[in-house]
Amino acid sequence: MTNTDFFIPRLAIVGVGLIGGSLALALRQAGAVGEVIGIGRGLANLEKALELGIVDEITQDVVAGTREADVVFLATPVCKLGEVAAAIIPSLKDGAVVTDGGSVKASVIAEIEPLLRPEVSFVPGHPIAGTEQSGAEAAFASLYRNRRCILTPTARTSGEALELVQRMWQTSGSEVVVMEAEKHDRILAAISHLPHMVAYSLVNAVGSYDRYEENILEYSAGGFRDFTRIASSDPSMWRDIALTNPEALIEMMERFECFFAELKEDVRSGKGERLYEFFQRSKELRDNIL
Amino acid sequence: MTNTDFFIPRLAIVGVGLIGGSLALALRQAGAVGEVIGIGRGLANLEKALELGIVDEITQDVVAGTREADVVFLATPVCKLGEVAAAIIPSLKDGAVVTDGGSVKASVIAEIEPLLRPEVSFVPGHPIAGTEQSGAEAAFASLYRNRRCILTPTARTSGEALELVQRMWQTSGSEVVVMEAEKHDRILAAISHLPHMVAYSLVNAVGSYDRYEENILEYSAGGFRDFTRIASSDPSMWRDIALTNPEALIEMMERFECFFAELKEDVRSGKGERLYEFFQRSKELRDNIL
Ligand SMILES: NC(=O)c1ccc[n+]([C@@H]2O[C@H](COP(=O)([O-])OP(=O)(O)OC[C@H]3O[C@@H](n4cnc5c(N)ncnc54)[C@H](OP(=O)(O)O)[C@@H]3O)[C@@H](O)[C@H]2O)c1
Ligand SMILES: NC(=O)c1ccc[n+]([C@@H]2O[C@H](COP(=O)([O-])OP(=O)(O)OC[C@H]3O[C@@H](n4cnc5c(N)ncnc54)[C@H](OP(=O)(O)O)[C@@H]3O)[C@@H](O)[C@H]2O)c1
Repeated sequence: MTNTDFFIPRLAIVGVGLIGGSLALALRQAGAVGEVIGIGRGLANLEKALELGIVDEITQDVVAGTREADVVFLATPVCKLGEVAAAIIPSLKDGAVVTDGGSVKASVIAEIEPLLRPEVSFVPGHPIAGTEQSGAEAAFASLYRNRRCILTPTARTSGEALELVQRMWQTSGSEVVVMEAEKHDRILAAISHLPHMVAYSLVNAVGSYDRYEENILEYSAGGFRDFTRIASSDPSMWRDIALTNPEALIEMMERFECFFAELKEDVRSGKGERLYEFFQRSKELRDNIL
Repeated sequence: MTNTDFFIPRLAIVGVGLIGGSLALALRQAGAVGEVIGIGRGLANLEKALELGIVDEITQDVVAGTREADVVFLATPVCKLGEVAAAIIPSLKDGAVVTDGGSVKASVIAEIEPLLRPEVSFVPGHPIAGTEQSGAEAAFASLYRNRRCILTPTARTSGEALELVQRMWQTSGSEVVVMEAEKHDRILAAISHLPHMVAYSLVNAVGSYDRYEENILEYSAGGFRDFTRIASSDPSMWRDIALTNPEALIEMMERFECFFAELKEDVRSGKGERLYEFFQRSKELRDNIL
């Protein structure tokens, strides 16, 4: 896949982990990027990124590393995005485009927009792709292929910058969807943040059940393992998400609680027909997304 | 895998679906069975089973089909097991061993034990293996390989019959664990029944969220799909399980609700450290079962 008319001469990736590293690899593979500078705090991870050919240069100095960049991709944990933006925006070159990959959008926009200069554009984004792994070693070029990437421009986002970031993600293999940040945060609360809260709670509830001496998780077959895989995700990433999208998340958690409580009442009262309908409706919804 | 010293001359499978069909295939592959009679209600499924070489003979007459059997494996839905047992026990030959694969044990024992004759033994069992598919076509010989099978004998179960059923499952590739029915029902409520209730509730809660016009499930990436795969399971099987194991299931549902409510309160009050600990504890428990 090469796309001759899309090219970023100098790309800075702040946070060369799964998300940042995979974008660099995808753009490289497409021949759509000149020089890639990798920026982070830990030297070991940066050296790994260099060794793996993810980036051409590395630095722990976020200001120096981004100063000459045409595009800066912020891929640090969500709670660090504002801090990084505050550090770099004053020294970015005119015309630079800043974009991010944070899993939450409204809170990130609220932090970053007030820091902008007229010469620097910000395009908030979120690639809907990931694994349970993290760090440069987890990155791979095809992570974004056939996935969606949601961009949530605001009134201040320039059309040109939006277009550029849109093409960047398309070049990486994704379909780009544009929507408002609030809508993004609610949809993601439903399809991603809620399921993680459910999985983490389930594993804790079952794993700490100590009525029997043995570890009952040893009886779990493939179903439980697959079902709870997302409970292996990075705890600090999910802390950040829970801290930055609480309103939408609580709305969805309460919605889930209502359905669960209704089901529990039907189990308690032995309502076979209602139970069947509940399971059947769910099966239909689930089978439709296969 | 052939096991020369274990052999069942005549095996009757009542309910030639995923569970019954896979046992027949596993025992056949091990050369551990003579003739296999498949019994069911629908002719189409039985003919399929014959065509696929799962069984040697088929009949819709459960009494005729089991009369000469040395071992009868009951693999119908849980709520039908008592009915089938009542029909066949009077005419089984002396020394016949009846065993089952139902996902719930205490209620099945309560139904079947009063029907027994002194010449017929019953060994309640549950192979911890399965897929989301059903029917004869879903059966495969390796389903039980490297899985566990739980047997829950009672005071009335003969040692000889228990030994035979134990070897039958070992021959099919499983490790056999013997425990009390009540313990089985509580452990399974935790590791299997609760997760299914959670998955069904989650898909219903998310799938029916209609704040936006589009179908938000279309945004779900691999995580959601994997996480909710078990919500594709057979609704009638799960209705039966919920109807026959309500006490243990409600205990676990309430336990889950407590953990989930605690988490929701920490999200609401933005307690970052507690959130991190909650997720971290869960990740550790989950990673330990990998
Ligand atoms: N994982 C997913 O499934 C997924 C999906 C979509 C979006 N996201 C979002 O993508 C972002 C990154 O996630 P990830 O999964 O790629 O995490 P990751 O693999 O842990 O990568 C994050 C990187 O950021 C660096 N970093 C942390 N703090 C920094 C700072 N203050 N300045 C510079 N670099 C810093 C880390 O290295 P050092 O610690 O050495 O600095 C690390 O290499 C998060 O905002 C997340 O919400 C994740
Ligand atoms: N699926 C799993 O993951 C799993 C795991 C462990 C244990 N189990 C247990 O195994 C049993 C069977 O489950 P399965 O997944 O194999 O279901 P399945 O594939 O639907 O098979 C059940 C079979 O029973 C037959 N049947 C239903 N009612 C009958 C009756 N009254 N008399 C004779 N045959 C009857 C059905 O055919 P007709 O409708 O044509 O009669 C069908 O072929 C259940 O008790 C379940 O709890 C299931």
